[in-house]
Amino acid sequence: MIQPIRVQQESLEILDQRALPCEVTYIICREDVDVVEAIRSLAVRGAPAIGVAALYGLWLGARAAMNSEDFTQALEFSARRLKSARPTAVNLAMAIDRGLAMAQGQPRDQVVSTLRREADDLWAEEEASNRRMAKAGASLIPFGSRVLTHCNTGSLATSGMGTALGVIRQAYLERRITEVWVDETRPLLQGARLTAWELMEDGIPLRLITDSTAASLMAQGEVSLVLVGADRITRNGDVANKIGTYSLAVLAKHHEIPFYVVAPMTTCDARMATGMEIPIEEREADEVRAFGGREVAPSRVPVYNPAFDVTPHDLVTAIVTDRGVARAPYTTSLWEENADA
Amino acid sequence: MIQPIRVQQESLEILDQRALPCEVTYIICREDVDVVEAIRSLAVRGAPAIGVAALYGLWLGARAAMNSEDFTQALEFSARRLKSARPTAVNLAMAIDRGLAMAQGQPRDQVVSTLRREADDLWAEEEASNRRMAKAGASLIPFGSRVLTHCNTGSLATSGMGTALGVIRQAYLERRITEVWVDETRPLLQGARLTAWELMEDGIPLRLITDSTAASLMAQGEVSLVLVGADRITRNGDVANKIGTYSLAVLAKHHEIPFYVVAPMTTCDARMATGMEIPIEEREADEVRAFGGREVAPSRVPVYNPAFDVTPHDLVTAIVTDRGVARAPYTTSLWEENADA
Repeated sequence: MIQPIRVQQESLEILDQRALPCEVTYIICREDVDVVEAIRSLAVRGAPAIGVAALYGLWLGARAAMNSEDFTQALEFSARRLKSARPTAVNLAMAIDRGLAMAQGQPRDQVVSTLRREADDLWAEEEASNRRMAKAGASLIPFGSRVLTHCNTGSLATSGMGTALGVIRQAYLERRITEVWVDETRPLLQGARLTAWELMEDGIPLRLITDSTAASLMAQGEVSLVLVGADRITRNGDVANKIGTYSLAVLAKHHEIPFYVVAPMTTCDARMATGMEIPIEEREADEVRAFGGREVAPSRVPVYNPAFDVTPHDLVTAIVTDRGVARAPYTTSLWEENADA
Repeated sequence: MIQPIRVQQESLEILDQRALPCEVTYIICREDVDVVEAIRSLAVRGAPAIGVAALYGLWLGARAAMNSEDFTQALEFSARRLKSARPTAVNLAMAIDRGLAMAQGQPRDQVVSTLRREADDLWAEEEASNRRMAKAGASLIPFGSRVLTHCNTGSLATSGMGTALGVIRQAYLERRITEVWVDETRPLLQGARLTAWELMEDGIPLRLITDSTAASLMAQGEVSLVLVGADRITRNGDVANKIGTYSLAVLAKHHEIPFYVVAPMTTCDARMATGMEIPIEEREADEVRAFGGREVAPSRVPVYNPAFDVTPHDLVTAIVTDRGVARAPYTTSLWEENADA
């Protein structure tokens, strides 16, 4: 299973997902700014993977700050810079806060090793969390299902077996899934480039579709259920995820198809009451004006390119976390220590 | 206003819309097979434009058949070949049938001039029909509207001012529209390449979006209504149109936004009772796997690529034809000589 990051003695290597599936190349990050740039430019993406990468970034930031006059200030500056790389996914901010909390009050030479250990731990926790979600989620899937998924929520997004894709992998092993419909996921085509590639590597049957084909498939009875990941889930169960997720949720409701969200508790943000508060990142017009580097629209055409949308909790059939399966009302169920697995 | 075709003394010149907006080139068709190929490969597209091009194709077929042993047989062969170029749009078959009916019983030298005249007439009728639809449709649009459209239904699709885009043009002139949201319309990006281009040429404010952004805009209250064209409308008002249209119709219903279909009566097929009967063209996997020759998915990934979907009549707020505005029940309203304009 390919990993989105590789950790070395003094550096972090980030798989450049923008070049996939054509090329497999790694970006070598020796400083925190290299990680910031990799996150911002989507070389690494997927909320859980971003969290892990960012915490390694803070470790690199601490290393670089070792000889600075005010170490604490330098570390906080590094933390702010990393947090600002992408605003929507909560894992990033949480990973950084976790690192800062652990580092508090320690001498600077210890901080570096503490941050490195915290990042290693977070990674291991994400892997274990993925396995728990996969098992809990697979139990929801009837035998013989054809499932539809959006964007990439696999090994590349999570540094584990995946969130929604982890459930798909597990359910396929349990012979519950016969085929996967993969949304290509414009504008950056994470479905076409990454999810299709991961599923082919695993030998799981799939068919790739354009995003706007999903509705027609549902009308034909070809979709048993929808499985997606999340970038942030608020206290009431509202879900921010890749643009197009909300569209699928509305379509699933219209066709009376279950709509499941799979995300670790690190993606759940109890400090936010509802999805109204989630900052939605708007990205560059050229992502839409061009397709795979080739211009496909008039070069100065105005574009609206939000990276995410928000799905209100009442369209979500269940949320699968590493604690189990939560159902409405999420304000209570999502936050209980032992959800009904 | 750019036209999708130009007619010469002995040939038909078809604007190659696949190369737009980067290049403006014409394909010179001297024989019916050239027209068949242009239709099949989407050099010319849009149901009304295909109808007009095909009838000129039959004219070219008749010219070529002048010296053949069995002229009638040759003409019928040409007609079949043209009809088979694309199965979903009804205008193509209707235009060919109209030509054949007019040619019936005439000597071969007259048939050629008859077909040429019929094609010229059809073109002129489409233009007049577009103007009538534009006026009728504009009356439906409240002042200050922001409208969303899909695919290309403009001059390039119709050889007139357009169907849905004709309504948008007219409504903009009447100051009813403040902005147009343009779906890029994967896989062939007719929205990004053609509609955005036509609107920019006309100075009508627009923003280009990926197809899966529409739902989020609707949820934010940014879409007043949806306007689309059609490739075939059945007796009960079911609508076959570019893949993604049905998705928009479901989303519009969920958000309580009017969903209007604009198409000439030549697109309405009284012989078909419901959308269940409409043949849906499946196109090549490579349209989804790549764009402009650049691969964006694993090269052998299986793909499902239907060109159209069917929107059931109960999701359609009104159908604007060249006879006026029809509302449910369409089984009667659509077919009355004088719909309520």
